[in-house]
Amino acid sequence: MAETTRVPAQDWVEKHAATLAGALGANSERGYWSPYPETPKAYGENAVADGKEAFETYLDAQFPLDQTATVGWGGEEVSPYGRRLGITYPVADFDALLASMQEATARWRDAGVEVRAAVVLEILGRVNARSAEVAEAVMHTTGQAPAMAFQAGGPHAQDRALEAVGWAVAEMRRVPAEAEWEKPQGKRPPLRLQKRFTIVPRGVALVIGCNTFPTWNGYPGLFASLVCGNPVLVKPSSSAILPLAITVAIGREVLVEAGFSPDLIALAVGAPGQRIAADLAVRPEIKLIDYTGSSEFGDWLEREAPQAVVFTEKAGVNVVVVDSTDDYKGMLGNLAFTLSLYSGQMCTTTQNLLIPETGIETDQGHKSYEEFGADLAGAIEALLGDDARATAILGAIAGESITRRIAGAEGLGEVVLASRKIEHPEFPEAEVRTPTLVSLSGPEDPAASTEHFGPIAFLVPAASTAASIAALRDGVRANGAITAGVYSTDEATLEAAEEAALDAGVALSCNLTGGVFVNQSAAYSDFHGTALNPAGNAALTDAAFVSPRFGVVQTRRHAEEGEG
Amino acid sequence: MAETTRVPAQDWVEKHAATLAGALGANSERGYWSPYPETPKAYGENAVADGKEAFETYLDAQFPLDQTATVGWGGEEVSPYGRRLGITYPVADFDALLASMQEATARWRDAGVEVRAAVVLEILGRVNARSAEVAEAVMHTTGQAPAMAFQAGGPHAQDRALEAVGWAVAEMRRVPAEAEWEKPQGKRPPLRLQKRFTIVPRGVALVIGCNTFPTWNGYPGLFASLVCGNPVLVKPSSSAILPLAITVAIGREVLVEAGFSPDLIALAVGAPGQRIAADLAVRPEIKLIDYTGSSEFGDWLEREAPQAVVFTEKAGVNVVVVDSTDDYKGMLGNLAFTLSLYSGQMCTTTQNLLIPETGIETDQGHKSYEEFGADLAGAIEALLGDDARATAILGAIAGESITRRIAGAEGLGEVVLASRKIEHPEFPEAEVRTPTLVSLSGPEDPAASTEHFGPIAFLVPAASTAASIAALRDGVRANGAITAGVYSTDEATLEAAEEAALDAGVALSCNLTGGVFVNQSAAYSDFHGTALNPAGNAALTDAAFVSPRFGVVQTRRHAEEGEG
Repeated sequence: MAETTRVPAQDWVEKHAATLAGALGANSERGYWSPYPETPKAYGENAVADGKEAFETYLDAQFPLDQTATVGWGGEEVSPYGRRLGITYPVADFDALLASMQEATARWRDAGVEVRAAVVLEILGRVNARSAEVAEAVMHTTGQAPAMAFQAGGPHAQDRALEAVGWAVAEMRRVPAEAEWEKPQGKRPPLRLQKRFTIVPRGVALVIGCNTFPTWNGYPGLFASLVCGNPVLVKPSSSAILPLAITVAIGREVLVEAGFSPDLIALAVGAPGQRIAADLAVRPEIKLIDYTGSSEFGDWLEREAPQAVVFTEKAGVNVVVVDSTDDYKGMLGNLAFTLSLYSGQMCTTTQNLLIPETGIETDQGHKSYEEFGADLAGAIEALLGDDARATAILGAIAGESITRRIAGAEGLGEVVLASRKIEHPEFPEAEVRTPTLVSLSGPEDPAASTEHFGPIAFLVPAASTAASIAALRDGVRANGAITAGVYSTDEATLEAAEEAALDAGVALSCNLTGGVFVNQSAAYSDFHGTALNPAGNAALTDAAFVSPRFGVVQTRRHAEEGEG
Repeated sequence: MAETTRVPAQDWVEKHAATLAGALGANSERGYWSPYPETPKAYGENAVADGKEAFETYLDAQFPLDQTATVGWGGEEVSPYGRRLGITYPVADFDALLASMQEATARWRDAGVEVRAAVVLEILGRVNARSAEVAEAVMHTTGQAPAMAFQAGGPHAQDRALEAVGWAVAEMRRVPAEAEWEKPQGKRPPLRLQKRFTIVPRGVALVIGCNTFPTWNGYPGLFASLVCGNPVLVKPSSSAILPLAITVAIGREVLVEAGFSPDLIALAVGAPGQRIAADLAVRPEIKLIDYTGSSEFGDWLEREAPQAVVFTEKAGVNVVVVDSTDDYKGMLGNLAFTLSLYSGQMCTTTQNLLIPETGIETDQGHKSYEEFGADLAGAIEALLGDDARATAILGAIAGESITRRIAGAEGLGEVVLASRKIEHPEFPEAEVRTPTLVSLSGPEDPAASTEHFGPIAFLVPAASTAASIAALRDGVRANGAITAGVYSTDEATLEAAEEAALDAGVALSCNLTGGVFVNQSAAYSDFHGTALNPAGNAALTDAAFVSPRFGVVQTRRHAEEGEG
């Protein structure tokens, strides 16, 4: 796929300098910033149509990836919107592929930080230009609705990648290339050494993708590892390969143009029926692992792959404390949207709503626990009353296990709002489901302490708001969470909730009633995860997420005029 | 031990600002710098005598440490210079002690980065003022000779601590306390959020000390964890408790003066005969572990303590490639000193000397493999010919296992220089031993691939310098190393050695012939370890060593004038 004209990577340093500087600045300031427009129309009038067309060329064919050591073809993706994609991907002889990836490392290392950053930004730029194509791929592997697949799968994922690249570049730039060391020796001549410091990558990185956000969750580790000099083996979820395969193909194309081995990024797909993630994860060549998915496998990786630095995002139980509000309608609308977006199939979706059993104070008067439940159910029904609008928010259920889980959850307590199946006007085979609201017995209810991934939310009556806040603190400590929220008109209550969030190590959103939602996390500004609770040992993106991806190797010798 | 007058920690921010700024600057520039003089006379005429006297007050007594949840007393240190110290230390009920440490965390967290840094620098300043006392403690627990115990155990260890604190402060300062986020929404009003970011410590940190460099190896993790907000439980090696007990006592004294709980730093000592490190390491309260010691226990920690971030420095096989030199005498003198210093009981001491079997070119003509061995033996004998000077360089053997290892090593090949026992003029019970030089069969000799900690060096004949460099690369990759060296007059050979060092991930010293030695590592400038080879997963000090010690917890709410 490489162009025959070589573009020296050096030219790209200048080309991408402003974008890189922008990312570094945004990471420090943590305000809003992005070089990647989030609306499809910014990509040209035909972008969406072209993206669909590009997506369709992949169907029922071998994916065009000329990868080293290919020994077969695998892949059995089925769109949550109905059709079997029929795309197969190269299956590798991993002994040979990993050897080739290792072989490619020294040249990439020796290119230095600035050239690597430029190459990585060129990859991201081309991924960005093909956002509509990636969006189709995300939609038809994850079940996300088109608008979300475009934004979260395209520019927002690219933003999270660029954010991580910026953090990594900043960390690598902290080490000077050279230093002179001169130590006084009293009356004797000083000791003088010249020192050189080289950023050295840790080794082959493995990215284990998830099936709901293959790019958004996969990109930060992928691009951070690559810019630090590590070759990256991308192992997508078997149900969401295409978005990452396109990314790998673009990466390989750019690397070749830049004069490097394409094997600095490669795709790992199993032969039909073969599960390869665990085998790959414990191979001695693998020195870095980025993983998003179940706690069971995440815990296994943290324990069983000690040869690698393992970054995980696992299950959690996200929680919102409802105490009081001066915008009852705004709060209900905000919560309704949060619970509905992508059918709650987000690691950031609220599961447990902690409400005083005595009810809450609002600008519309006191609302009992039951009234709040009914009003929230009503807000969800109003939001999703129109099927076309509903499907645009809900998308499709990503897998049968989630449909089964809804039915199970409705047996765990009193059903305040039953999940409803919606007929998708365009894709009749899609499973589209509205959220269920189930009232539990209280914070001690066992159902409140495990993740029920999908369109499932629990109303949890607490003795008081103080008890709700205690349940937030204890629950996050015990079960993990990526997000937490609080609604209160009382500053002391907000402070108590903040103290609990600090104690438990979870991000807190206060009184969101408008166009920002607790389940949304903005690159360059919001930290996604904290690495401080059981929902994961990594945060997107902080220094700890990037700095173990490289080491510093120094050489020293006597300075020319020096002593000795 | 606390003063009754409270010194508000806030005052210390100003007091220590210049020192902190100096450390941050030195970490970035990586030239020579230190606020802690390395000569005893800089501490006053009576410093050494006062230090000795302070040390003697500890002997045959309970160590003055008023620690929470003390249920007994333990400690059985014996000086390698002869006498049983007779000091006992508090043995804790760890359930209660750890609960108290956790309890103390929130206030320390809420104090913020700048106040914590000031308190930690105050601790370091008082440790520095008591360097002579700590030096006596180091000497009589590790067997280091007095000069080394003072420098390496005192100011150099304090430098490594301050270096780590500087790295940690720099990382924490990268996250702003607050941000405004304003996202344009086309014709609608922008979305606006106010965000707050708080540095949150990971949890209780465990420092597992080593018996040869309790302060130098223990301080970086200890002080980095503390400044990031974590309480620190210090578990010294059972044979080198006193230096760290003094440090803990000073830390507790300063913390109380600053208005914090003393239990933010505590000592962990087992009851007589009780081994506690492994039990402590897997406790759920322990979230960070810093360890220096055997590969066996280090590997165990990396595998069995997944609840914690584990930083290890383990065994390695340090190597020097000898190819050619234009200063034969300087090279021999430098190597002789390296092999002799502290009887080679350093994690940085060279073990394998790779020499072409055809010999080397020097400014004194060609030297055969055998001639080089004989000349190096001669240089060592000359360096250590005078018993008083020899004991000042060698110190004492730290434990019987090392004495036994010398005898074993002399059976592994041809003895070129036998280890000699020297009578210590002042301490007749001390085991003082000169290094042994043993010629092995070649790089493939099994003896060359395992660590022989102590005054043991191997002459290893290689087919050529290229073969030596290959052995360096392969050996470090397989067995780890903290240091490597090369002697060559040929720039291409130096470059090949550097390439091998980069590939294997080990620091390289080139042509050291004067007053700098491969086994010395200078704070703020030299990275000690790389975290890239089997000798350890941590480096002193880089970003990866400090950044996992904290996370960032954010809160966000609508800005006052904002949308929604």
